[in-house]
Amino acid sequence: MTDATEAHQTGPLTGLRIVEFGHFIAAPFATRVLGDLGAEIIKIEPPSGDPVRSWGEQLDGKSLWWSSHARNKKSVCLNLKDPAAREIALGLVAKCDAVIENFRPGQMEKFGLGPDDLASVKPGCILVRISGFGQTGPRAMEPSFGMIGEALGGIRHLTGHPPDVSDLPPVRTGVSLGDTVAGLYGAIGLLAALHEQKGLTLPQDTPVRIVDVALTESVLSLLEGVLPEYGALGKIRRPEGARLPAAAPSSAYACADGSFILIGANSDPLFAQLMRVMARDALIDDPRFIDNPSRVANIDAIDDEISSWTKSREPEALLAELQAAGIPSSKIYTAADIVADPQYQARGAVQAVRDPVLGQDILQPAPVPRFHGENPEGIAWPGPAIGEHTEPVLKGLLNLSDEDYRHLKDSGTIGSA
Amino acid sequence: MTDATEAHQTGPLTGLRIVEFGHFIAAPFATRVLGDLGAEIIKIEPPSGDPVRSWGEQLDGKSLWWSSHARNKKSVCLNLKDPAAREIALGLVAKCDAVIENFRPGQMEKFGLGPDDLASVKPGCILVRISGFGQTGPRAMEPSFGMIGEALGGIRHLTGHPPDVSDLPPVRTGVSLGDTVAGLYGAIGLLAALHEQKGLTLPQDTPVRIVDVALTESVLSLLEGVLPEYGALGKIRRPEGARLPAAAPSSAYACADGSFILIGANSDPLFAQLMRVMARDALIDDPRFIDNPSRVANIDAIDDEISSWTKSREPEALLAELQAAGIPSSKIYTAADIVADPQYQARGAVQAVRDPVLGQDILQPAPVPRFHGENPEGIAWPGPAIGEHTEPVLKGLLNLSDEDYRHLKDSGTIGSA
Repeated sequence: MTDATEAHQTGPLTGLRIVEFGHFIAAPFATRVLGDLGAEIIKIEPPSGDPVRSWGEQLDGKSLWWSSHARNKKSVCLNLKDPAAREIALGLVAKCDAVIENFRPGQMEKFGLGPDDLASVKPGCILVRISGFGQTGPRAMEPSFGMIGEALGGIRHLTGHPPDVSDLPPVRTGVSLGDTVAGLYGAIGLLAALHEQKGLTLPQDTPVRIVDVALTESVLSLLEGVLPEYGALGKIRRPEGARLPAAAPSSAYACADGSFILIGANSDPLFAQLMRVMARDALIDDPRFIDNPSRVANIDAIDDEISSWTKSREPEALLAELQAAGIPSSKIYTAADIVADPQYQARGAVQAVRDPVLGQDILQPAPVPRFHGENPEGIAWPGPAIGEHTEPVLKGLLNLSDEDYRHLKDSGTIGSA
Repeated sequence: MTDATEAHQTGPLTGLRIVEFGHFIAAPFATRVLGDLGAEIIKIEPPSGDPVRSWGEQLDGKSLWWSSHARNKKSVCLNLKDPAAREIALGLVAKCDAVIENFRPGQMEKFGLGPDDLASVKPGCILVRISGFGQTGPRAMEPSFGMIGEALGGIRHLTGHPPDVSDLPPVRTGVSLGDTVAGLYGAIGLLAALHEQKGLTLPQDTPVRIVDVALTESVLSLLEGVLPEYGALGKIRRPEGARLPAAAPSSAYACADGSFILIGANSDPLFAQLMRVMARDALIDDPRFIDNPSRVANIDAIDDEISSWTKSREPEALLAELQAAGIPSSKIYTAADIVADPQYQARGAVQAVRDPVLGQDILQPAPVPRFHGENPEGIAWPGPAIGEHTEPVLKGLLNLSDEDYRHLKDSGTIGSA
């Protein structure tokens, strides 16, 4: 056990206590964001651990992702199949401000931790429930898979090349986007429900305040004009590959070394400036490219012109020339570029966090958003071991005696690191 | 002018008043989410209007996207280049709970609406500032472009096919993802700052509470194990196309009609089940596919097997067979599929909102998250006309007389629909 429970988180949510019955990504991402802002996160974890502990690259048997995914959280290991563990969980709920979970709908009820159970120990308890399809409707009880939620939410259809360019399938966004966006909405819902209860005295019979977040609907909320345009015009937006759909030129262009740079010259002055940089001034007044609608109509022609210029040059030289001319342009960053970037360095956007289990500093993204001038790190400790905080939390919050603690541990009701 | 100001938003944020100095996507997306939850949003808009009013498909000169992007907001038209408009803006700030803006850093100060100005009328004013690079660092003052923020944040590198599959560039995520994720963090920051001030009496000299959201860092926060794995192992994650990087088989597979379906059979039992459905039982015990690490090592071989099965079949028949066998699978939804989906219909996830300007019902995604049992729509009115609420807001909140209102309108300080 590290001294993590002694480290105090600071930030605007200091003093807020949240119990997480979460696993995988969505609810744990919500609590990562809330913990980064100072909330105390008590993560209830089964003896087998959160599955993310074994995801991605490992070092000495510990997932590197875990180090950032579970940072600032207290792991309390409970075997919820044991009725005695349920009593402990309810004891923690009674002492917290909100609960967040992302089990398949019905599972919390099976644990004896459904809304009525929570309300019995904490009237008006805020319960954020994140699931694949939401808590209602014919598919509510189905398990959630991020890949499928993203497809149903409509974003997968848009992350591909147009059919006339490639017959390859649309790609994943590369991260578990549906889960993380649902997690962000979960954090928003939790804070909104807290605001609603501000200053109220809740009678003993107040039911639970349920915040219902569906992964599918979280993705759907990002789709901009897709639904309005379909409804009014019957238009089905198609994937547009590397391009912006409604403005040109703006795309990724191949360089001599096979890498790509992004160029966004999709206004009349920027387009003219780009043509001057390319020494193709004659194209500025070409009727095919005279304004944005014309450029969009002749997008292949203009992209061919730009590509034939970029293809014979190295990316560094191109970017230097474009940036000197004030044309929005960029390399496509990898992890190595991010770590080397001066703006990120100036902001401390990548933090090196000492991980006692891994025995080294682990690179992690800094908390978002930043609160001016205070606690720029916001990372008190990295992802804990299973049950690392069982003892201090149960003894501290529930006044569990040494004897009772030993008894519960011997019986397998609780676990500790 | 519609009767929009009479329509009352309900929801957990009812009673909260937020002034938005926003344009384009990020800050307006934050206020869409907050307005959906019941907050009163006063959007300060220039006489030329928010540029999104002219983005995407139009109907009778009104952007369809605008109908959902600006819903539940009050548009107050102010020409901020006029000093008299500044006084009105400060009057509104004095009466609100928080301010959110996404101008280029320095622009609010140029308007005379910098942190000190806001604090002079509202001590401790919460000011959420969303920008491309954040409020500090060498690139802070540069304009923000979503495409570039997404590239610097590291997600663009991951949304492509691996180099051995295609030399096409990585795609956009199809939506302005960096802006919307930054908007979600802006909403979280605003609510967190409100929580922090709960119950406090702020002295007259309390400075502004700044919440600093960078588009780049918002994207970076989504990158899961990318930074920890690079830091500890030097591993640079590469784009993986349609596949999950660490589990197989899970990808998009082409059908006879050229469309794709998603299949996720990346556990031992699901893989065995899929092989039985494909009548390829012999592959279950094939050493190349015996467990997940083996399948990942032989991912091309297993994907070839699955593709050769899907390619000769129609998607409907495939999905019926897969779903009967309990194998996670899905069509890749377009707008038409979303609108026709029974789960979305049962949840009211797509709302038809009467738009008086467009003269018809406009399809919009429902608010996220849902608050149990209350106001399932959460959409009181669609995106307003420029200055549609100038008169009721200024007369109602600032007690502006009819004479002063006419004078300000005649002088061009304010505008109204």
